[in-house]
Amino acid sequence: MSEAPETAKVVFQPSGRRGTFPLGTPLLDAARALGVYVESVCGGRGICGRCQVSVSEGAFAKEQIVSTADHLGPVTDAEARYVSLRNLPEGRRLSCQAAILGDMVVDVPMEAQTNRQVVRKRAENVTVAPDSAIRLVTVTVDEPDMEQPLGDGDRLLAAVAEASGLAGLSLDPPLLPKVQKVLRAGHWRVTAAIWQDDGFPPRVTALWPGEKTTVYGLAVDIGSTTIAAHLCDLANGRTVTSAGTSNPQIRFGEDLMSRVSYVQMNPARLPDLVSAVRAAVDALVAKLVNDVGATREDVMDAVFVGNPIMHHLFLGIDPTELGGAPFALAVSGAVHIPASELGLELNPGARAYILPCIAGHVGADAAAATLSTRPFEAEALTLVVDIGTNAEIVLGNRDRLLAASSPTGPAFEGAEISCGQRAAPGAIERIRIDPVTLEPRFKVIGLDEWSDDPEFAEKKDQVGVTGICGSGIIEAVAELYLAGVITVDGLIDGALAERSSRVVQKGRTFAYVVASEGIELTITQTDIRAIQLAKAALYAGIQLLSDKLGNPPIERIRLAGAFGSYIDTKYAMILGLIPDCDLAHVSSVGNAAGTGARMALVNRGERRTVERVVREIEKIETALEPRFQEHFVNAMAIPNKVDPFVKLREAVTLPEPRAASEGSEEDGDGGRRRRRRRG
Amino acid sequence: MSEAPETAKVVFQPSGRRGTFPLGTPLLDAARALGVYVESVCGGRGICGRCQVSVSEGAFAKEQIVSTADHLGPVTDAEARYVSLRNLPEGRRLSCQAAILGDMVVDVPMEAQTNRQVVRKRAENVTVAPDSAIRLVTVTVDEPDMEQPLGDGDRLLAAVAEASGLAGLSLDPPLLPKVQKVLRAGHWRVTAAIWQDDGFPPRVTALWPGEKTTVYGLAVDIGSTTIAAHLCDLANGRTVTSAGTSNPQIRFGEDLMSRVSYVQMNPARLPDLVSAVRAAVDALVAKLVNDVGATREDVMDAVFVGNPIMHHLFLGIDPTELGGAPFALAVSGAVHIPASELGLELNPGARAYILPCIAGHVGADAAAATLSTRPFEAEALTLVVDIGTNAEIVLGNRDRLLAASSPTGPAFEGAEISCGQRAAPGAIERIRIDPVTLEPRFKVIGLDEWSDDPEFAEKKDQVGVTGICGSGIIEAVAELYLAGVITVDGLIDGALAERSSRVVQKGRTFAYVVASEGIELTITQTDIRAIQLAKAALYAGIQLLSDKLGNPPIERIRLAGAFGSYIDTKYAMILGLIPDCDLAHVSSVGNAAGTGARMALVNRGERRTVERVVREIEKIETALEPRFQEHFVNAMAIPNKVDPFVKLREAVTLPEPRAASEGSEEDGDGGRRRRRRRG
Repeated sequence: MSEAPETAKVVFQPSGRRGTFPLGTPLLDAARALGVYVESVCGGRGICGRCQVSVSEGAFAKEQIVSTADHLGPVTDAEARYVSLRNLPEGRRLSCQAAILGDMVVDVPMEAQTNRQVVRKRAENVTVAPDSAIRLVTVTVDEPDMEQPLGDGDRLLAAVAEASGLAGLSLDPPLLPKVQKVLRAGHWRVTAAIWQDDGFPPRVTALWPGEKTTVYGLAVDIGSTTIAAHLCDLANGRTVTSAGTSNPQIRFGEDLMSRVSYVQMNPARLPDLVSAVRAAVDALVAKLVNDVGATREDVMDAVFVGNPIMHHLFLGIDPTELGGAPFALAVSGAVHIPASELGLELNPGARAYILPCIAGHVGADAAAATLSTRPFEAEALTLVVDIGTNAEIVLGNRDRLLAASSPTGPAFEGAEISCGQRAAPGAIERIRIDPVTLEPRFKVIGLDEWSDDPEFAEKKDQVGVTGICGSGIIEAVAELYLAGVITVDGLIDGALAERSSRVVQKGRTFAYVVASEGIELTITQTDIRAIQLAKAALYAGIQLLSDKLGNPPIERIRLAGAFGSYIDTKYAMILGLIPDCDLAHVSSVGNAAGTGARMALVNRGERRTVERVVREIEKIETALEPRFQEHFVNAMAIPNKVDPFVKLREAVTLPEPRAASEGSEEDGDGGRRRRRRRG
Repeated sequence: MSEAPETAKVVFQPSGRRGTFPLGTPLLDAARALGVYVESVCGGRGICGRCQVSVSEGAFAKEQIVSTADHLGPVTDAEARYVSLRNLPEGRRLSCQAAILGDMVVDVPMEAQTNRQVVRKRAENVTVAPDSAIRLVTVTVDEPDMEQPLGDGDRLLAAVAEASGLAGLSLDPPLLPKVQKVLRAGHWRVTAAIWQDDGFPPRVTALWPGEKTTVYGLAVDIGSTTIAAHLCDLANGRTVTSAGTSNPQIRFGEDLMSRVSYVQMNPARLPDLVSAVRAAVDALVAKLVNDVGATREDVMDAVFVGNPIMHHLFLGIDPTELGGAPFALAVSGAVHIPASELGLELNPGARAYILPCIAGHVGADAAAATLSTRPFEAEALTLVVDIGTNAEIVLGNRDRLLAASSPTGPAFEGAEISCGQRAAPGAIERIRIDPVTLEPRFKVIGLDEWSDDPEFAEKKDQVGVTGICGSGIIEAVAELYLAGVITVDGLIDGALAERSSRVVQKGRTFAYVVASEGIELTITQTDIRAIQLAKAALYAGIQLLSDKLGNPPIERIRLAGAFGSYIDTKYAMILGLIPDCDLAHVSSVGNAAGTGARMALVNRGERRTVERVVREIEKIETALEPRFQEHFVNAMAIPNKVDPFVKLREAVTLPEPRAASEGSEEDGDGGRRRRRRRG
């Protein structure tokens, strides 16, 4: 037995959570161990700066500790590099770098907490005929007879076979100890749930005394940020209730690649990531069944979709191979698995079905989105884009279908943007800029009024004006372009500083001030560059697929996912995020992945459909395509350097191309055309 | 929180196990809780008298307790009844009745301990072509390719499908988290175990890096008293090692019905019985794999047989319904179940197959014995008898097959016999009685010499002469009959007491003294009655089946099971335990149930065969047959009152029927013709 290491007591505020940790523990690890949410995008490498905290100085009688920043370990090289590049407010330290060397009270600043995240994944209507993998049959079973000594379970199966017309039925082994009691409790009249799917012989997976008419299924879209779950009545296919929650894996890394890095660096912690996401699903199950007065035992089937990394982590698979080329999936085909093996407490006989993944970057969520948007049945050439940290792109029609992903990075979700934030109350989500005065008006999440509404001033303190979310950024940049504040190359025209106080100089470049009361919210040149990089990556990916098809006109565009559902399609096209198309045929389809999951839940035929489509879909690896770079460079311009956007110009007047005034040139880093890490 | 109950300290000798128990705990429960073996045949009802113990008086310094029999609770009504009927040696109490009221040291007498049980189930040769449910395929898997983004597991399946020619393959879900590591560890060359059985789509159930050529299967016969397990090489079907152990459920009741009673009275203890038998199997697995230098991971399949109650308890099913008419099985058909769901630590992908039961009293062991003795393929009319506490009887040939069980009771196993004991060293297993002098000679288990060998006297203290086991009882009664000591009606001729000191009066009846040095071993009139009742029950069951076939001559007899393997077939026939038949065609087949289990393990076709045979077999419920009683009465005579035993008389000279001398009549209870409880 080794001696206990020396430890220190740490209290996090405002949550008040506390714990004792060995000296040398990084503060971020301590926060994670206590379930205190501290944002971290870079996986603890001292790069993102999101994990800033400060230490309260003084004696805390209640805690019986004396807290001082002197109890933090020295600034590390990584932290010093961050400070040299980005600076840190006084008293702030990066919690991933600062080690605990003594007792302390740590303040987690507001911006580093998840607080009040808006779950934007909602259930859309599903219109497929119900034909689920679960069928209920109520039967009367012959009583035992010494002359015909078949077992109770065997007589049950005979009755179920006769009532259902199914051959080759068997009983799920865990039912064996229960069958006699249920038969007697029901006075030989019982309801059996039969599970039948995909060539497996049919099985009785649950048994209730008497008659039972309703059982449920679960459809879950596991996103890197949010998890959306729906409870469906398996008899009629209706979604009876839905719920969403944050993905608690955020504790281990904000974006997907950070979580992969985390597992790579801490392989023993893989079970923690797995159980975190499973526990979140479990909590949703509890809420869903409670909503409708059902029990967990009433849930007999479950369908899951997610991007490849979520898919792997939910299945308990180490995602390390997905962290680098050749991005090998452990399994790409659909997975049938007892729900209990996923740690889910449903009916003990419940099954789970996980949709196939398309490729190492194009997951079961993209497969589900494809299933629900059905380009494979369309005559019109259809583009489906699901924009998250990765954008998944599907292009084609019933003749041919291509898929790819493009590493857009987290800019669309408000990360990498100086005043960016997740979609939460207080975030600017809509913005208009007057082309004459250059004055903005905007709308924030949580308030119905626009900022130029007299009531806005009264109400704004309810939620504050705290940042700009993804859809707000898109509109801001597009409106800046329409207003002539930025050029087609994305440069803020510094000459306008003379005309408007909204345009201000920041070092060698300029910025646009959206709001200055309370928190100052500005859109900097660097922010615009981040959006350009993200939209260029997306557009280049789409263009690659279009090249494969010979660049036919795109006739329909479906924007999926939380981001895709909330952005204004017109602004997305003005920015050149999506290609030219008749705006009347561009629409948001909400959580298309969740919809696809529900379709696969309530109709087995949809499972076979998505399996077939995924097998037939052509996967394009953008990283292997030599023209990606060329498309990417062209797509840095707004809307695009070479594509004329003819249909868009019919609907919207775009500014004439012109050069920015002198002195507007960006800093050296702004024009970088780096490929981004996946995530 | 309730207050802790007052407790007492109890030490059991000679084991020295000790524990603290709440006042009022029955001593037998305390013994069970500590794993101290105290025999109990009646399930704690104060009837069998096997659980006798005594309390040591005095102060035990080492234990720091003062022990006195005064610390035992008062004699219960059941115990008083037992004493009035059977008496108890001074100082003895029935541990199932005596409650703990204070500290004590308890002596468990030698006869109440299991000591040195001989496991008589051995592996016989199996000669079926190997075609197991497990197949190994070594394949080279394509490496991941960004242009062909199938998952690693999917490419593995493709390679396995090509190598095996199997369609519809899937991966067992628990392999998903392992597949990438195994592929890389094997440098893309791996061996897959494919499980394929009974219409289930084939599955890859295990995966090893590189080449692997040997995996094993387990065949287990779970008897009420002993468990025999065999490890077989699944590639060539050979049994590589075997092992046996006592069934630890004996703690909960010696015979099957006691265990059912125990569960009925203590339903919350069902898991204890289940885990007891599973733990015993687990211990055998450890021994078997160790024997051959293999690991548990090398075991991919397992087959189990057992009587219906063992079958149910092993599967975790409450056997209560088997305790009374209509003796309803929870399941009679064959069961496929993951081995892990039986609590077995084999390869995580290992499957288990449990043979079908024939009826509520005719279990998977009888099905397995039928499979290995193959009457269903014979032209000759064949009788298969597996004698345990129940006798299972199968009669017929390839045209028609009947099955029944008959409640022989435990007499054949040495229970209910005054000097009876289980087959263990020191037990008399062979006996000859000189018809002139009436002097016996005998052989005990553990010594090669007969008792009239000069070396016997020197060696006998090595094992002692402690009782008579089942096969010894059969020979003793038959030899007593041949020597004229007992009549065809089973009465000991009291007149012989004048001629031989071996015949002695005991109350109103007589007894025969087998041994008088050391422990006196006598065969009483009551003992003979017990054997007559048991053999009459068996014979009556056979006769009922014969009636159904029109009483054709029985051409072959196969005696199976531990008892059937050790009795001399000639003596069994002299006693009228089995019907008349050419002795050359009567043979013991050893553990036919275990052999059948091994056949079903190494060849899947045998599983289909036994399933078909069990479906087609005609089940006769002896309790429902009006002629049972008549056959039973006739079969009380030796060999039989009405059957002439022509073929036997050609081989052996049987005494002429004669009446016993006056004064030999038995006590009032001896002639009882009661039906026994099943057990």
